[in-house]
Amino acid sequence: MISGAPDLNRAPIGVFDSGIGGLTVVKEIVRVLPNESLIFIGDTARVPYGNRGVEVIAHFAEELSQFLLGKQVKYLVAACNTISSTCLDRINRELPVPVLGVVEPAIDEALRLTRSGRIGVIGTRATVNSGFYEARIKQDAPGAFVASQACPLFVPLAEEGMVSHKATRLITGEYLKPLTAQDIDVLILGCTHYPILREVIQEIMGPDVALVDSAAPTAEQLRLNLAAKGLLATESPPHYDFYVTDAPGRVNEVASSFFGADLPAKLRKTTLG
Amino acid sequence: MISGAPDLNRAPIGVFDSGIGGLTVVKEIVRVLPNESLIFIGDTARVPYGNRGVEVIAHFAEELSQFLLGKQVKYLVAACNTISSTCLDRINRELPVPVLGVVEPAIDEALRLTRSGRIGVIGTRATVNSGFYEARIKQDAPGAFVASQACPLFVPLAEEGMVSHKATRLITGEYLKPLTAQDIDVLILGCTHYPILREVIQEIMGPDVALVDSAAPTAEQLRLNLAAKGLLATESPPHYDFYVTDAPGRVNEVASSFFGADLPAKLRKTTLG
Repeated sequence: MISGAPDLNRAPIGVFDSGIGGLTVVKEIVRVLPNESLIFIGDTARVPYGNRGVEVIAHFAEELSQFLLGKQVKYLVAACNTISSTCLDRINRELPVPVLGVVEPAIDEALRLTRSGRIGVIGTRATVNSGFYEARIKQDAPGAFVASQACPLFVPLAEEGMVSHKATRLITGEYLKPLTAQDIDVLILGCTHYPILREVIQEIMGPDVALVDSAAPTAEQLRLNLAAKGLLATESPPHYDFYVTDAPGRVNEVASSFFGADLPAKLRKTTLG
Repeated sequence: MISGAPDLNRAPIGVFDSGIGGLTVVKEIVRVLPNESLIFIGDTARVPYGNRGVEVIAHFAEELSQFLLGKQVKYLVAACNTISSTCLDRINRELPVPVLGVVEPAIDEALRLTRSGRIGVIGTRATVNSGFYEARIKQDAPGAFVASQACPLFVPLAEEGMVSHKATRLITGEYLKPLTAQDIDVLILGCTHYPILREVIQEIMGPDVALVDSAAPTAEQLRLNLAAKGLLATESPPHYDFYVTDAPGRVNEVASSFFGADLPAKLRKTTLG
């Protein structure tokens, strides 16, 4: 294990997200890495990114990562599948700090779990159109079969808290119907919002399909990456800063629904650039 | 009638929108004012505004109107109910060119149509929370009764083209249930997206409730305002420029669904500021 400079070990991890769905990932990071300080920024002024073009997504993601670099973070996490699947390579090339996305940890987990090698992926339109999941899965497992499906209404339904509404059930049934015909045994929830809809998704897919979400595998991969670079925080009590670019009335309520508990820090409104 | 400088008469009208729902208004302007040149900008990189805070909405709206002022427009139209109900007064104070919103023309029309003085309003969360419709209606008709309801899922449902889907019917029924109990005789569709859902809304509200949307009244009000200032274009054939801040794959398809026909100009991608 390489040993980092003590100052760097104490530096926070920076997590950025198109909105606040990434708090499902932050929750796991806090659980797996309880000593780590953490700065989160969610771009609530411009959420959602999932229907936008790649150039716009990349531009917004660069602004978010620059904000965190200005706060002297030691490591970055893109807690958003749309960013991770469309422009993470570009960001990684441009920044002085490594960026971990949420796509690859979930793919590793899916490949561990599949017996048939038939894997489904659901995500936003931008994520599915990127073809990134399919390309990465086939890189690791050339014989795998991948079926993808965009589910553009899942984000607004999850944000409205309509997790067991009959309309959500109807829409979920329709989105997932092509996948139920593909005999997959693992389905990757390729958007940080989707774990909120896990129950209805599982019901439609049936009990034999394992659902994989990015949160726990990403937190574990982050732990491994920090350890490999000797960057783990060891002593100091952690400090949390949670930023959003807009804080309309319901933001704390929605944030708590994703974090699954009260946030460890109050959301603070900031502007970018 | 005051006569404007000839150059000013030939200048285009500028129309701005959070996205492309405002093309329902543009369509009526083109119909009512066939000689007028028109520049439209839709902020597709940051749409939707309807769940955002007022400060963020005002900041974005100012950027859009500055873009149009840079193109020497003679008059501005905010073809978005969220902008019109949250920050139009502020924009009007700051800009050298008058700005017409979509709220007041629809209110005038609703007050013309109501017999009972009981009026319903549906819109985004930001629009309904602003209280602007209620305040403006009571200013003109102090005895009126106003019932408002936010319908946050209508925009994504309309953009997905799910106009007659069973899930849309269920959600519409739930949103409008409180209004059906209020014995209103006019319902204002307080969002440029909602005319797309007119059929299912009418079905839930019943045949005795008149639906008022902003498009035609706003175009007519614009005609009156231009005429009063001597600013109507008379001779030159019109020129159309349609801009968006992001142009992902489906944007032309969605744009045509709002415009109700092929656009008179191709959507061009631009950046603000």
